[in-house]
Amino acid sequence: MRESSWVVDFANGGRDQRDLLGGKGAGIAEMTHILGADLVPAGFTITTSACVEYMRKGGELPWGLPEQVDAALGRLQDRAGHRLGDAANPLLVSVRSGARRSMPGMLDTILNLGLNDDSVVGLAERSGNPRFAWDSYRRFVQMYGNVVEGVPGERFESAIADAKSARGVRLDTELDADALRELTYVFQGFYDFPADPREQLTRAIRAVFDSWQGERAVTYRRLNRIPDDWGTAVNVQEMVFGNLGESSGSGVAFSRDEVTGAPEPSGDFLTNAQGEDVVSGVRTPRDISELKAWLPHVHEQLMEILRKLERHYGDMQDTEFTVQEGRLYMLQTRNAKRPAQAAVRFAVDAVHEGLLHREAAIQTIDVTTLDALLHPTFDPAANYEVVATGVAASPGAAKGEIVLSAPEAVQAQADGRQVILVRSFTEADDVAGFHAARGILTSEGGKASHAALVARGMGRPAVTGADAVEVDLAAREVRIGERVLHPGDLIAIDGSQGRITLEDVPLVEPGVTPEFQLLLSWCDELRVLGVRANADTPEDTERAIELGAEGVGLCRTEHMFLGDRQPLMAAVILAETDQERAEAIEQLRPLQESDFEGILRAIGGRPLTVRLLDPPLHEFLPHPSDLPAGSHARRRAEQLQETNPMLGTRGVRLGILFPELYEMQVRALLAAAARIDGAHVEVMVPLVAYERELSVTRTLIERVAAETGVENAKIGTMIELPRACLIADEIARDADFFSFGTNDLTQTTLGFSRDDIEGRVLGRYIDVKVLDRSPFETLDTPGVGRLLRMGAWLGREANPALGLGVCGEHGGDPDSIDFLHNSGIDYVSCSPFRVPIARVAAAQAAIRAR
Amino acid sequence: MRESSWVVDFANGGRDQRDLLGGKGAGIAEMTHILGADLVPAGFTITTSACVEYMRKGGELPWGLPEQVDAALGRLQDRAGHRLGDAANPLLVSVRSGARRSMPGMLDTILNLGLNDDSVVGLAERSGNPRFAWDSYRRFVQMYGNVVEGVPGERFESAIADAKSARGVRLDTELDADALRELTYVFQGFYDFPADPREQLTRAIRAVFDSWQGERAVTYRRLNRIPDDWGTAVNVQEMVFGNLGESSGSGVAFSRDEVTGAPEPSGDFLTNAQGEDVVSGVRTPRDISELKAWLPHVHEQLMEILRKLERHYGDMQDTEFTVQEGRLYMLQTRNAKRPAQAAVRFAVDAVHEGLLHREAAIQTIDVTTLDALLHPTFDPAANYEVVATGVAASPGAAKGEIVLSAPEAVQAQADGRQVILVRSFTEADDVAGFHAARGILTSEGGKASHAALVARGMGRPAVTGADAVEVDLAAREVRIGERVLHPGDLIAIDGSQGRITLEDVPLVEPGVTPEFQLLLSWCDELRVLGVRANADTPEDTERAIELGAEGVGLCRTEHMFLGDRQPLMAAVILAETDQERAEAIEQLRPLQESDFEGILRAIGGRPLTVRLLDPPLHEFLPHPSDLPAGSHARRRAEQLQETNPMLGTRGVRLGILFPELYEMQVRALLAAAARIDGAHVEVMVPLVAYERELSVTRTLIERVAAETGVENAKIGTMIELPRACLIADEIARDADFFSFGTNDLTQTTLGFSRDDIEGRVLGRYIDVKVLDRSPFETLDTPGVGRLLRMGAWLGREANPALGLGVCGEHGGDPDSIDFLHNSGIDYVSCSPFRVPIARVAAAQAAIRAR
Repeated sequence: MRESSWVVDFANGGRDQRDLLGGKGAGIAEMTHILGADLVPAGFTITTSACVEYMRKGGELPWGLPEQVDAALGRLQDRAGHRLGDAANPLLVSVRSGARRSMPGMLDTILNLGLNDDSVVGLAERSGNPRFAWDSYRRFVQMYGNVVEGVPGERFESAIADAKSARGVRLDTELDADALRELTYVFQGFYDFPADPREQLTRAIRAVFDSWQGERAVTYRRLNRIPDDWGTAVNVQEMVFGNLGESSGSGVAFSRDEVTGAPEPSGDFLTNAQGEDVVSGVRTPRDISELKAWLPHVHEQLMEILRKLERHYGDMQDTEFTVQEGRLYMLQTRNAKRPAQAAVRFAVDAVHEGLLHREAAIQTIDVTTLDALLHPTFDPAANYEVVATGVAASPGAAKGEIVLSAPEAVQAQADGRQVILVRSFTEADDVAGFHAARGILTSEGGKASHAALVARGMGRPAVTGADAVEVDLAAREVRIGERVLHPGDLIAIDGSQGRITLEDVPLVEPGVTPEFQLLLSWCDELRVLGVRANADTPEDTERAIELGAEGVGLCRTEHMFLGDRQPLMAAVILAETDQERAEAIEQLRPLQESDFEGILRAIGGRPLTVRLLDPPLHEFLPHPSDLPAGSHARRRAEQLQETNPMLGTRGVRLGILFPELYEMQVRALLAAAARIDGAHVEVMVPLVAYERELSVTRTLIERVAAETGVENAKIGTMIELPRACLIADEIARDADFFSFGTNDLTQTTLGFSRDDIEGRVLGRYIDVKVLDRSPFETLDTPGVGRLLRMGAWLGREANPALGLGVCGEHGGDPDSIDFLHNSGIDYVSCSPFRVPIARVAAAQAAIRAR
Repeated sequence: MRESSWVVDFANGGRDQRDLLGGKGAGIAEMTHILGADLVPAGFTITTSACVEYMRKGGELPWGLPEQVDAALGRLQDRAGHRLGDAANPLLVSVRSGARRSMPGMLDTILNLGLNDDSVVGLAERSGNPRFAWDSYRRFVQMYGNVVEGVPGERFESAIADAKSARGVRLDTELDADALRELTYVFQGFYDFPADPREQLTRAIRAVFDSWQGERAVTYRRLNRIPDDWGTAVNVQEMVFGNLGESSGSGVAFSRDEVTGAPEPSGDFLTNAQGEDVVSGVRTPRDISELKAWLPHVHEQLMEILRKLERHYGDMQDTEFTVQEGRLYMLQTRNAKRPAQAAVRFAVDAVHEGLLHREAAIQTIDVTTLDALLHPTFDPAANYEVVATGVAASPGAAKGEIVLSAPEAVQAQADGRQVILVRSFTEADDVAGFHAARGILTSEGGKASHAALVARGMGRPAVTGADAVEVDLAAREVRIGERVLHPGDLIAIDGSQGRITLEDVPLVEPGVTPEFQLLLSWCDELRVLGVRANADTPEDTERAIELGAEGVGLCRTEHMFLGDRQPLMAAVILAETDQERAEAIEQLRPLQESDFEGILRAIGGRPLTVRLLDPPLHEFLPHPSDLPAGSHARRRAEQLQETNPMLGTRGVRLGILFPELYEMQVRALLAAAARIDGAHVEVMVPLVAYERELSVTRTLIERVAAETGVENAKIGTMIELPRACLIADEIARDADFFSFGTNDLTQTTLGFSRDDIEGRVLGRYIDVKVLDRSPFETLDTPGVGRLLRMGAWLGREANPALGLGVCGEHGGDPDSIDFLHNSGIDYVSCSPFRVPIARVAAAQAAIRAR
């Protein structure tokens, strides 16, 4: 058997090996090539394939791996000029995870590996800093014990507390070398510490592999749709030390502002600290601009490196660096995760700067984040008291009740309450709470803190580092100055401006920025797929047009019979004679006509697709138990109750049973259209399963069209039942257009009642990996998608002029849009606020398809 | 434009022109060839195409038709040697409808056409019977006025009544020639009677065409699934007279007993009567055997003709004849509609007699009628008083409340009441009542009466001609001897024996007769499709095996958790801890195990397919409103309520949410199987939409199989969702078999909730011709059928060893069986009582497919 290659030196890797080396390993390797070996500490990557093999073998190291690690370690030692465990001048290494996609904080890392009772002495001598050496050793024994041996963190923390109180000091930094040495031996007593550095390395590698299967990582992957079978790589790298004194430090730096995308590098750093200290958010770091004053040559060098990396990658970079006694080392680079406004700003600037051409710039946008651009902000006209400020860590505003833990947030979501998660700082275990909360507020941490990163990734507004906010978990209180707040109290945050208030500030929907407008105009030039909106009122229609909709692809008429008009609709349903019914319908007609006239005026000549009445009639009546016993209304309401209303007397079935209702709607629409120059209406018949349902209804519509003198009305149908897809060729003979109603098509194809399945089954299905996401968010392509393509194909075969749209919620989902672009669909129709997202996603789909 | 040929002389037609000439026209033409022109009065047929063209042109006679009728009439007159309207020796003709399929009594007929004030004199002279001539004329003017001019029948009846009272006589036959002449003139005053025979003929042809669109005919076609666009032919035939005195008569004759199928001709006749008198049932006719005594040579000649026709057609014949002054004329022959027992008897006898080979004999069975063989009969062991007897007109027994009209029967059916329709005699307007009633009882009419024919056609038990039964509609009473009954009173009839009782006699299911058994054994040799049964109990299983099932294709387990066991199942659902749930489940296990053991013992080594729990859990709890407010049970029951339970938390979704439930069922089944030699179990997982639902469940089943030591259990899935059909290749990798659950597949593919649609939408859909029958009775082949074939094909592609079954109700429907035979399905599974039907239908499908 040929031995696989499980280990790749940094010098031999590169950016195109991301799947094999993980993002971090590929990034370090690429940096080694671009920046040169002096700026990047040497090392090697154990591949993701090794991890996959390790999992496959149930936790046994792959055949040949130990030998390959030995060889790579040998090369590393030769290059570094010192050896792991050398008592005089030891090589120390970090052992870091690195998956194909970043999973911040989810996988394990061990620093300072290679120290033992002998080599610590050598480190002390070589650094001339015994306290540093013992602190490094103490940290390693602690981290190793926790990560590899599973010793609870509290045991170490409480030993440190004991040591401090024994010496009468308050801070960790006040513990001297002797105290740290004693602590190290205490820690060693907690478990069987292996003195042999090679043994340490093997166990650390296994621990990183194992962390891939840890509960936190599994949850994170589920939420972020990362396949379980990717595995993680392990990067073994020579240590550099940011904690070697005041000319040392660690930081993160972005090639541009990571929140706004403005073309100035941003980031945070801490002096005399290791990298983990910056990311953890425990100490509030300094802004990267202050680096200039502290170590100007390092600042200049870093700025140059950031420009170089950005040019090389053609994307905004997110880097980690360490300064060891005044010398800069780059530890990592990757394309920066960024909020939507930064992504848009970067894409537009990159084109203007000549860094990227338009297609490439558009492809840098993670379209799933654009949602955040459409988050509300505090109403600029509102007056409210700002009780505290913090870091504007993730854009958008949110308000809700205070909750203090992730489980409380999850429970609140289940109860339908809107909440803000308030914490001192956040950790991986809090991630479920991010999902459930409307926003996140922390008292500690900067823009690169865990809370900020995760919130931006999820598009949740966040304010971090609000140091006036004091979270007292024991007392279950949040104190802001004099104010004492409790869970359930209202709080509001603006993550775009870092503001906190206790008032019920009105939120407003954001406009589209000029940069975004420009980007969207580029997308419009590139995309093939049309984008319409689902809108039922003149106001929604106006909003949709502002956001770039090319028409209304779904105007639902049922809302027009609720509210004030419900009694009129009830009269239609409760009519005891045809005469009574006709009179009640005739009362609705002028109202319906003015509804359509308003929308037609708002839409300005763009196409308006009106769906005829769809829901079952009982939706227009009160529940039977709310009506007087024995009354006619109650009897009728009871008669109309259905076991499975989703599959009941609705859609075109109503049109066949009560043609007078459909006739009224069509007459109102066409009468309105006849009064407006250039009106372009499309009448859509819902829930067609049989060709004749449509032909009968088409005859009715054509008759009314002839009577009202409207000649250009199109007549089509919503394709939302499996049968309609299967006999689409027959249906297409009577249709000018199809609009796939993918919501109902998903319900029937999968046998999933959305109301019933989402809360009860879907979560479990994602847990056991039947599904990786809700089929109501992203189109189920193997099932529903196949039917849709069959319907589109059969329809066009029978009627080449057939228009094809999609008006389910999938019309605003980027992955679904990609599929629809490749299915020959003419346009999608989505909610007005998703129109810009659909425009970008449609452009990306077109670019990808080239 | 080439002139179409709208008219075909009898001498030029034949049996293969049924579509063009209608059944009657083709039959007369064929008889003309076989029996010779002397035995069949001459004439011609105006084709169904002419009728279709007439409808297409909105009631205008097709171009060229009048000229072609003139020409054909000319030929007829030449052959007959006298002319229509000839004052000395007039030709008289009948004008009869005749569609492609028989629609007894639904279309119009006019006799004696050609009479007027002149020709009646000629007829009187030629016949030497003025009374006959005037009676014929009177009848013609009456029938013509009613049929062509729409004069209500009552006006004629009341004029007759006046004439009788003026003359002090009681019977029509007591009116002499003078009285009849006067009456004729009175009748002529009711409308504008056309004296010109050619004009009479044109109007009569139009009237027959128009009757195709009449309400009765439309309803009949809807019920009998006859397309509206077939049209009817019109047969114009020289009149012969059965009412020329005591050596004349009319009758119907079957080549074998039309009720039992026994190889003796049967039928009815009336002396001195026209054919309509026999069919109308107004006079109770004499049995055909009495013909021998009356006119022995005619009897002998008729018997010979019946044998000849049966040999020629290879099927049992139903003929009409007239004897005119001792000379026999055959007016019609057609394959006899017959009840199931007669059909079976004929098929078996025909093979034994060498008339047909087995395949042909099996094809003579109208499998839709076999249902009647499985109708109940009175328990032979029961004692009950027979209050009256009548003609055993349609087999099977029934009991229910008396109703006196079709609308009452329809209403009762809607109310869920079982009724017997009791009438003096029935007419076309009563047909809807036949559908709604369990059985039909008339006081008049024989085996060939309207009531008998329609009841046999529909498989409804009927007793006719029960002259002790007196129906008084005015008093709303039914009198039987001294007894006075009212609507709502119980009555029971046995249509196999002609018995009537007022007692609540127990009904018993019939056994399979030896003839049927033999026929079924032939079918078993010929069919390819396997037949299993749906059975949930040992009793049902035994019954199914007796009826020829080759196994149980669907054993539903949910019924095993109702009744006595409901509290145990409720405990499972209401459990507050895993421990409680596990204990409750453990209590169910031994009960479930004994259920399976019972069925496995009954099934005797044949395959048993057990479906794991399928329905939503709330079906095992009372409705929330029936539980104490605020109780745990009520809260849980409320939580479990679903908006669309059909698409909710059921099937394999339960198995994923509560694997312990499925594990218990599998363990119980396999433990039972392990104890029984040769047990052959198949575990069926319901409602699979995703491959992983099945693979996860398969893993569970395989683990339990290993633990119980059962090695031969098959594991498969019910394919009942569109998605499952679309990704059947993926699912097939984890399945030993598929069983298509066509009930639910129909519901989801069509978006039809059976509970909601059947009562509200389906009737209207059939009226407006969206559908011609319920998709829950006969598989919707363009939609559901296409999905099923896709699923079968994809499944077999991925797994050539995959077993394929169908276990929806369609498995017992003959048309669906034909489709499934041609879809590569291995077996159907249907309710035990439909097993024999499925066996015959499967054989017919195999024969047809050759």
